[in-house]
Amino acid sequence: MDKKISFTSADLEALFPGLRIEAVRREDLDAAQAHLDNLTKPRGSLGRLEELAARLYAMSGGRLPLSVSPALMLTVAGDHGVAARGVSPFPQAVTRQMVMNFCNGGAAVNVLCRCGGLDLRVVDAGCAGGPFAPHPMLLDRRLGDGTADMSRGPAMSRETCLHGLRLGLELAAGAAREGYRCLGTGEMGIANSTAGTALYCALLGLEPEDITGPGAGSDPAMVRHKAGIVREALRVNAATLASADPVTILAAVGGFEIAVMSGIMLGAASQRLPVLVDGFICSAAYVAALAICPDLAGYAVLSHASAEPGHGPALARLDSGVSGGMSGEPLLHLNMRLGEGTGGALAYHLLRGAAAVYNEMATFSSAGVDERTA
Amino acid sequence: MDKKISFTSADLEALFPGLRIEAVRREDLDAAQAHLDNLTKPRGSLGRLEELAARLYAMSGGRLPLSVSPALMLTVAGDHGVAARGVSPFPQAVTRQMVMNFCNGGAAVNVLCRCGGLDLRVVDAGCAGGPFAPHPMLLDRRLGDGTADMSRGPAMSRETCLHGLRLGLELAAGAAREGYRCLGTGEMGIANSTAGTALYCALLGLEPEDITGPGAGSDPAMVRHKAGIVREALRVNAATLASADPVTILAAVGGFEIAVMSGIMLGAASQRLPVLVDGFICSAAYVAALAICPDLAGYAVLSHASAEPGHGPALARLDSGVSGGMSGEPLLHLNMRLGEGTGGALAYHLLRGAAAVYNEMATFSSAGVDERTA
Repeated sequence: MDKKISFTSADLEALFPGLRIEAVRREDLDAAQAHLDNLTKPRGSLGRLEELAARLYAMSGGRLPLSVSPALMLTVAGDHGVAARGVSPFPQAVTRQMVMNFCNGGAAVNVLCRCGGLDLRVVDAGCAGGPFAPHPMLLDRRLGDGTADMSRGPAMSRETCLHGLRLGLELAAGAAREGYRCLGTGEMGIANSTAGTALYCALLGLEPEDITGPGAGSDPAMVRHKAGIVREALRVNAATLASADPVTILAAVGGFEIAVMSGIMLGAASQRLPVLVDGFICSAAYVAALAICPDLAGYAVLSHASAEPGHGPALARLDSGVSGGMSGEPLLHLNMRLGEGTGGALAYHLLRGAAAVYNEMATFSSAGVDERTA
Repeated sequence: MDKKISFTSADLEALFPGLRIEAVRREDLDAAQAHLDNLTKPRGSLGRLEELAARLYAMSGGRLPLSVSPALMLTVAGDHGVAARGVSPFPQAVTRQMVMNFCNGGAAVNVLCRCGGLDLRVVDAGCAGGPFAPHPMLLDRRLGDGTADMSRGPAMSRETCLHGLRLGLELAAGAAREGYRCLGTGEMGIANSTAGTALYCALLGLEPEDITGPGAGSDPAMVRHKAGIVREALRVNAATLASADPVTILAAVGGFEIAVMSGIMLGAASQRLPVLVDGFICSAAYVAALAICPDLAGYAVLSHASAEPGHGPALARLDSGVSGGMSGEPLLHLNMRLGEGTGGALAYHLLRGAAAVYNEMATFSSAGVDERTA
């Protein structure tokens, strides 16, 4: 993370009054590890499950038993003006069609949320074509009718972006009031891998040619074209991007769904709730949210390593200091690249497992098992 | 896999009358992929979940809907004479104590099976100290009171090993009769990473110094000592190991729980059921079972990459040809090294997810979603 691009806590208070994110505490992580070391297993032998359990303990500030249930996946959809530049093999109409598919229960994220035991809601952050008919799963948080084309100017205004972030904060606060103990973010938006790529470049100093990938399935020629469009977006918005204000940067080369997801992540952290970050696009929202408040890191769980080739290099740029006691390495490596929250929905099972291990395993003394003698 | 060490089908029929394992069929894998390609997602974007779904389809011979429920984890325990050589930091009594912990529900595998929705049974394949008192979770399949010390001679006779394999086959057949649609294997046995290491060396031509690791937590000096003991076991049993008969090799440097697990794996495959292979020790049982019948490969799911350093090199030695349509790469990479079936219990969720995706997702046409246009 480029240290120049970050808010002070005074900035944060001015923009988001009352937002407080407490960094997870080293002493909580250590206390949790001490408990884990007493359980009937060789020390450390549950690997990243132990790391997750310790972090869940620290996120909650030491509240026991650990619980990540119930969980809510928020799949946020929005359209992108830059889709007009031919950066996706799928037509823009697919964003809207997929929102209907989510509402009808037929998409991958529906299936994996049902299978994993997460509730699912769909947030319309601004799909092209106007508001949807009301549906019980669908939340209308529209910031517009798709963003402007970032290759011609900013995708949205700073005010619109701030509004999107605040809507995300409110979504997280509302979920916490309903009793959710874990949140997930997912996305749908044709051309949003272009926006995600531009955000990584703007926030982490990466080059479009190095990290632009096929997204939903661009062929190599389209990937090269897409990298050129990202380069164009960075050039057109260069003055804005030099501002070192993460909200302005997110407005210039982000997306409606990305801004709302960044807000949800920050909101989850302020509620001391774990938040599952999905893949390439969600991680871009995460990088923007980290620039707004680095203490988010302790509450974010990187669900999976996307097959999108830019994901690894982007995550590698994050300071290890932002990891909040957790490896910066995503949990799952399944060569997935679908989005929607599918990786988060799968990874949620690992959070459940980690909490259960912490809560339910016997200790050496309670089980009458000898400890190591050598 | 060393091609010399393998049975002919006549050998197999002579030793295990009636055992039939049908290789999964390429045309079934292709038919499943064609279905997956019609679902509302970019082609291939669910990565290894699609690979798993296609394989589940092929394992069942095309039976729909795909189902891996209910599932049964069989955690098999046995003691090892070689424990007397100081190869583990834990005393041998821990094997028995952990069996009691399993029966009382307090071990990691109990917790992760409950969390993952698998039933769990514990098989006593021969713990030192005689039979346990009866317990509803515990199956008595004792082959003895712990193996002999493999560093002085064969761990067991060929007849005992065959008996263990047959007990495993029967356990799998019984589980299938009860209606289980997925099996898992896990193990407990102080010193069994020494046996596992010896098996890898004998079956795959690896060197003890290259693949011996800390197991339950040996320090570097103990690891060096342990590699020396493995080397001794290979030397003492050299004439037997030259026999090119996988059952004889398994008898010489295996273990009671390892032989029973190999049998369970072969039995699962003969029932066309997926079988979850856990980590380092279970994979050694898998390598032995593959030598007995390579067509097992299509039914085995490598759950996780163990933190035990020899696991990766051992799996890398398996021919890609034995993979039955599946990458030889384990599903999870969580730096775990506990055993008991913990990795399999966690990975089971991915099988459930894969089956659900296959069964429940909408197609492009049913959902009215446009396919790619570029």
